[in-house]
Amino acid sequence: MKLTESLWISIEDIYDKILRHPFIRGLTDGSLDEEAFRFYVIQDALYLKDYARGLALLGAKAPEDQWLMMFVEHARDVVVVERALHESFFKEWRLTDEEVYSTPMAPTNLLYTSYLLKTAYDRPFAETLGCFLPCYWIYGEVGKELQKRGSPKELFRRWIQTYSSEQYASIVRQVLEVMDQVAQGLKDGDLELIRKHFIVTSKMEYLFWEMGFHKQTWGI
Amino acid sequence: MKLTESLWISIEDIYDKILRHPFIRGLTDGSLDEEAFRFYVIQDALYLKDYARGLALLGAKAPEDQWLMMFVEHARDVVVVERALHESFFKEWRLTDEEVYSTPMAPTNLLYTSYLLKTAYDRPFAETLGCFLPCYWIYGEVGKELQKRGSPKELFRRWIQTYSSEQYASIVRQVLEVMDQVAQGLKDGDLELIRKHFIVTSKMEYLFWEMGFHKQTWGI
Amino acid sequence: MKLTESLWISIEDIYDKILRHPFIRGLTDGSLDEEAFRFYVIQDALYLKDYARGLALLGAKAPEDQWLMMFVEHARDVVVVERALHESFFKEWRLTDEEVYSTPMAPTNLLYTSYLLKTAYDRPFAETLGCFLPCYWIYGEVGKELQKRGSPKELFRRWIQTYSSEQYASIVRQVLEVMDQVAQGLKDGDLELIRKHFIVTSKMEYLFWEMGFHKQTWGI
Amino acid sequence: MKLTESLWISIEDIYDKILRHPFIRGLTDGSLDEEAFRFYVIQDALYLKDYARGLALLGAKAPEDQWLMMFVEHARDVVVVERALHESFFKEWRLTDEEVYSTPMAPTNLLYTSYLLKTAYDRPFAETLGCFLPCYWIYGEVGKELQKRGSPKELFRRWIQTYSSEQYASIVRQVLEVMDQVAQGLKDGDLELIRKHFIVTSKMEYLFWEMGFHKQTWGI
Repeated sequence: MKLTESLWISIEDIYDKILRHPFIRGLTDGSLDEEAFRFYVIQDALYLKDYARGLALLGAKAPEDQWLMMFVEHARDVVVVERALHESFFKEWRLTDEEVYSTPMAPTNLLYTSYLLKTAYDRPFAETLGCFLPCYWIYGEVGKELQKRGSPKELFRRWIQTYSSEQYASIVRQVLEVMDQVAQGLKDGDLELIRKHFIVTSKMEYLFWEMGFHKQTWGI
Repeated sequence: MKLTESLWISIEDIYDKILRHPFIRGLTDGSLDEEAFRFYVIQDALYLKDYARGLALLGAKAPEDQWLMMFVEHARDVVVVERALHESFFKEWRLTDEEVYSTPMAPTNLLYTSYLLKTAYDRPFAETLGCFLPCYWIYGEVGKELQKRGSPKELFRRWIQTYSSEQYASIVRQVLEVMDQVAQGLKDGDLELIRKHFIVTSKMEYLFWEMGFHKQTWGI
Repeated sequence: MKLTESLWISIEDIYDKILRHPFIRGLTDGSLDEEAFRFYVIQDALYLKDYARGLALLGAKAPEDQWLMMFVEHARDVVVVERALHESFFKEWRLTDEEVYSTPMAPTNLLYTSYLLKTAYDRPFAETLGCFLPCYWIYGEVGKELQKRGSPKELFRRWIQTYSSEQYASIVRQVLEVMDQVAQGLKDGDLELIRKHFIVTSKMEYLFWEMGFHKQTWGI
Repeated sequence: MKLTESLWISIEDIYDKILRHPFIRGLTDGSLDEEAFRFYVIQDALYLKDYARGLALLGAKAPEDQWLMMFVEHARDVVVVERALHESFFKEWRLTDEEVYSTPMAPTNLLYTSYLLKTAYDRPFAETLGCFLPCYWIYGEVGKELQKRGSPKELFRRWIQTYSSEQYASIVRQVLEVMDQVAQGLKDGDLELIRKHFIVTSKMEYLFWEMGFHKQTWGI
């Protein structure tokens, strides 16, 4: 079995819980509070800035030049996507750049981005890739599922389209391919470390929706 | 005003909330659930392993050799303290090393340690020091306060002693001295970044007690 | 005076020595030993792989998203340039990828790339940029000068064209612009650190030609 | 065969060349130019400052707490040794701290320290250890050999004593033990990467004596 097949099996229950999460369900039945959605999109913009930096680090550590090229291109694309949020959602909500970027990261967001960047600096390429994979992959899967379900609200449909394109699906396939190639040279112990990172950041994906749904605060 | 004086003012409300937290109150009136205390001490052991690594990084980035020496000595001391927990608390609870270290970090613990290590790799010395300072300082202050209050339970008294010694207070003073010296060469913008880190990790100190009190789980 | 203007003044003597170096003169009067040129091009291919990684790190540390995008694009472009060497020069010399990449880095090359990567990990963005700037800038200036002088050998003309294009000059201008913008927020001490890096890697540029000319070995 | 045994075999010819180097021979027959010795000791002081930082990074990446403790203690000890040079040699030569630390690193010194620090940031613990090992080990072996040979000059004998103590030999044995323990979990490919680093920095050890003997300049 390919490593990525086995990784997905490890998170099937987490993925099921994501699909059943009231945030996700609310996007497709239209019941999601627009305040929660807005909270989520702002936090996502903050997240993407750090995710792009992490991808640049992942590229810097890539053992193959082809992979370096791929991850630095994704780093740039992530900034492009982040900016598109401004032109679309933030403009509609009349939020200035200043308002968006002065928003503090919610605890779950800071947990997720700190964990990504710490791992990118501290650990070898293969483990770091395991850490970054759920964001690529789960968004792709969730995107396809949401596209299938549709949404009564134009605002939510617009967001859903970003992650449900064939272009996005193709990017995910390329990254999975790299993960499986890297895995071929590794020992069981190393594969388990990859899995550990992969499960942890998959949980963070779930918690990110949870954070949006509850408009998570620091409570202090 | 010294930077450190101004930093403490920034977190006075956070520090007050820490002193009033039921975990802290429970240590001194003996009402704290021993299960919560055990949860906390195990998480603390996991925390200290990463804190020691972060201090080694802080030492590596120190512009003065004297500070390099100080922080690598602290890195070693933190491991010594972490091991002392095993000889004292874990032995009493009949917890093996294996049981302690196979415990997953609770979300707040992973947030705190990831944030420390990410900052240590990513940011200059002065900011990183601002990030590490609350753990030194708040523990010292809380330790003195707890010592004053005392505790009816021997187990809690034993823990309180670690952080209320004059030796520990002297370490804190040295670190504060370094922070104030570093600050002298910095511009306002840099000082504000230090303050930002300092406030964020002070909040994490509060949340760490909260994590212990509620025996925080991942919820997924 | 802009920082970059003042930086260039700091290296005018180094730049003059580069223009008078027998390697550079030999490119335009055709007297350069083709063995030395081949040695140089192979070392350059090895250099560019690390330079690309360093640019990805520089991007990861960029305080502005616009700069992150720019440097990760350059990281990718550097790999493209490095690959073009294979299609052009290495093909003509019948050198396989395996032969090129199993060549050990000469000492000066390992010095230069290690210094770039060490700085990229260890130091803040502005200093790191000062460190990477000479490679962009001196190549651009040398390229224009070589273009003016021309060369009787087709092989050398082909190489000269890479660094004498208007497109390349425009890239250099963008990077200089970033350096000057970053400089505006800095204190004199920080500017001197940038200058120190800038002068050191400018010297390494000179030594790189020297390395090629003498087909430098480890001597051990 | 233990990894370290096999590593030593890889550098036997380099080690032989070190023992026959005129700098080393000159220390024991007293023929070494004191200017060259002074040049060397100043460069060594600069080297040790970075070596200490590298050891702190090595400690930060150590998978075992025991090793973290060992390497951060060594980081501190290296600063102690570096300071002892000031009390002994620099005092005698009437060199102030300012004079020592404003001396620029010679190219070979900057190559060696940049390579150590780059590797410490960029590569996993085992490879980094392979990179740091020659400095520990070759100095220990050279020290024992020099002690056997003796020296007619008091100044040189004083220097020789630092690296020929039983205490130093015991430190080297501990580090070799860690290298062999780490090696047990590794695949052939990883062991070859360790060997590659080990051979490269062993060559740098040789070149460091060479640098001292010729009072190496930048030549630009």
